[in-house]
Amino acid sequence: MALIVQKYGGTSVGTTERIANVAAKVKTYRDRGDQVIVVVSAMSGETNRLIGLANEITDKPNPREMDVLVSTGEQVTIALLSMALQKLNCPAKSYTGSQVKILTDSAHSKARIQDIDDAHVRQDLETGHVVIVAGFQGVDEKGNITTLGRGGSDTTAVAMAAALKADECQIYTDVDGVYTTDPRVEPKARRLDKITFEEMLEMASLGSKVLQIRSVEFAGKYNVPLRVLSSFEDGEGTLITLEEENMEKAKISGIAFNRDESQLTIQGVPDEPGVAYKILGPIADANVEIDMIVQNTSQEGMTDFTFTVHRNDFVKAREILEQISAELGAGSVHGDDAIVKVSIVGVGMRSHAGIAALMFRTLSEEKINIRMISTSEIKISVVVDEKYLELAVRSLHAAFGLEHEG
Amino acid sequence: MALIVQKYGGTSVGTTERIANVAAKVKTYRDRGDQVIVVVSAMSGETNRLIGLANEITDKPNPREMDVLVSTGEQVTIALLSMALQKLNCPAKSYTGSQVKILTDSAHSKARIQDIDDAHVRQDLETGHVVIVAGFQGVDEKGNITTLGRGGSDTTAVAMAAALKADECQIYTDVDGVYTTDPRVEPKARRLDKITFEEMLEMASLGSKVLQIRSVEFAGKYNVPLRVLSSFEDGEGTLITLEEENMEKAKISGIAFNRDESQLTIQGVPDEPGVAYKILGPIADANVEIDMIVQNTSQEGMTDFTFTVHRNDFVKAREILEQISAELGAGSVHGDDAIVKVSIVGVGMRSHAGIAALMFRTLSEEKINIRMISTSEIKISVVVDEKYLELAVRSLHAAFGLEHEG
Repeated sequence: MALIVQKYGGTSVGTTERIANVAAKVKTYRDRGDQVIVVVSAMSGETNRLIGLANEITDKPNPREMDVLVSTGEQVTIALLSMALQKLNCPAKSYTGSQVKILTDSAHSKARIQDIDDAHVRQDLETGHVVIVAGFQGVDEKGNITTLGRGGSDTTAVAMAAALKADECQIYTDVDGVYTTDPRVEPKARRLDKITFEEMLEMASLGSKVLQIRSVEFAGKYNVPLRVLSSFEDGEGTLITLEEENMEKAKISGIAFNRDESQLTIQGVPDEPGVAYKILGPIADANVEIDMIVQNTSQEGMTDFTFTVHRNDFVKAREILEQISAELGAGSVHGDDAIVKVSIVGVGMRSHAGIAALMFRTLSEEKINIRMISTSEIKISVVVDEKYLELAVRSLHAAFGLEHEG
Repeated sequence: MALIVQKYGGTSVGTTERIANVAAKVKTYRDRGDQVIVVVSAMSGETNRLIGLANEITDKPNPREMDVLVSTGEQVTIALLSMALQKLNCPAKSYTGSQVKILTDSAHSKARIQDIDDAHVRQDLETGHVVIVAGFQGVDEKGNITTLGRGGSDTTAVAMAAALKADECQIYTDVDGVYTTDPRVEPKARRLDKITFEEMLEMASLGSKVLQIRSVEFAGKYNVPLRVLSSFEDGEGTLITLEEENMEKAKISGIAFNRDESQLTIQGVPDEPGVAYKILGPIADANVEIDMIVQNTSQEGMTDFTFTVHRNDFVKAREILEQISAELGAGSVHGDDAIVKVSIVGVGMRSHAGIAALMFRTLSEEKINIRMISTSEIKISVVVDEKYLELAVRSLHAAFGLEHEG
């Protein structure tokens, strides 16, 4: 007998028919003796309908009231799923975030979970109930309804799994697992049976949007085994766990990429203490997030800075940079918003030499010019011209043998 | 400065535009210095939409989960109304029944209020907030969401007014007050400025569906002045209060009627102790509510019973009665479902003689045959053939001078 937390997203519970399908799936787990907690999102479209109502009233809805409003979406789903399970003669009981209770701070629309009271839930599990919990929502110390931000149902599921020391947290979604890369770019992409939390974080932050980053961080922190599965097909999905020995076999686990990048360079900057802050401070102050940063070796007391920002922030960042350049008496500012970032990710890097060399050789053989390089312990990222994206991903996928199991 | 509780029903908050109108109306009260608590229902159609979703899942939805589901309707409205008030720079804060908290018993879908914690609400009123409370819902001792049954928002409003000792509880609806009779039957019907709780209860129970009976009972019990007003037009509405001297002037306040009646008679019943129970017990056991009951004087040890039931229960009740008649060795069973009940209501009856005589004379002059009579301290009801309904109402309205102020 295992204790399993399952999370179903908005698409999986988008109609009453689909809710009935979810109930049938949940029942198979309970019938084989597992204790099951189900976390659900609002029916797809419902959250947007509610936000639409608020926007009809005002363009600046109060965050506290917005949370009161949108939290009704999940509340509808928990009641319907509970009814659907009861119809299958499976005892079930629904809980809002406040009823559990999932205690959060008071940061409406982006609250963080502080504590979960598992007493009632545990009692219901022990009397054979499936417990259904509204995702995405909690309650602060004063009894105000809070929400964890969009997609926060994943976080609820992981937090419930951590609090109840569940054997596995299963995230049901519209894909059947985590792939070595995006199958739309490389049809030979292969579903991974396992991936580590660290790798998953790198993959997620680089644009593989299977899971919310915060939920993966949370799962890693509390060592909750996380599994990504399809709501609509049977299959084992991908298990996200702590690093294991058999993972050492694979040099890298996957190739991630991000199309939303743009590159900015400021040349001829006096190379003196504090200059990086003078350049990057005003950019950050304008709420522009900086991703990669490269500073060239100083030549004759002058240096160059190159960094990447989200493509939507390109124009704003370049304007700020030109102002800074004038203030510092620096040289010209260059920019390019037709670039992409391609990364290889894998804990295997730690114990395998020559990974970077193979990456650079592969790109070089395809005559792909590398514009920036950045590395971390389990990731190597390069910036290349946008037009090379598919070629770079496919050639790296082949070079590291990702179409075959590692 | 007064403390006012206002209640707006589903039609009054049926669209975001109407919610904005309600906000403007609420603000006029606060701007003149009143403290305002607003109780709202779900947007019209929303409760039925939610019930529809449940019925797609199962034809026997669990009552606890049904309450979780339908209580979201009011939760949406409180958030939207709060936003609409804030947009008018009027501080506002929403409360679900559970947040208030409105403690009820655990009878899902027909819970009764046991206690209201007014601490948070009072604090918000004192800091200048309009407090918006979800009608129709509460929470039981264990934290389960409960509902008071359809139309229960009126009860919430009165209970809040009682708990906070409000100066007035205003029920906004789609009519502009309580009338001497239904204006669709008698166009000369006049809006009453005042009516007593007792009279209102008799009017409501007889089919004038302006207010939920339970809310009037509650208001009477706790002596909460209740006012019925139109959401859409300005006006003073009708104030429902304890009896006052100036009410003595009017002999009667209004004429109520009920079209949903049917009449059953069992003849030749042995007149012995316990026979009433033998006849009426099985009817009540079948969940058929009996309204008027008349037993004739015994003749030669035999008597007749005549009673009225809701027209929907007519066939069922007659079948039961025929079975009882066979068991008791009684005579024949007669029934008529083309009858109506017409009543005159007024606390003035207590101090005025000749009211009944005037009623019977008026009906007699119109050649309307009276089939049953029943009286209470402030009401005289007669059963007549359905075809006489309009004639009876209009002739009584004229005979008691109801078109003029009393």
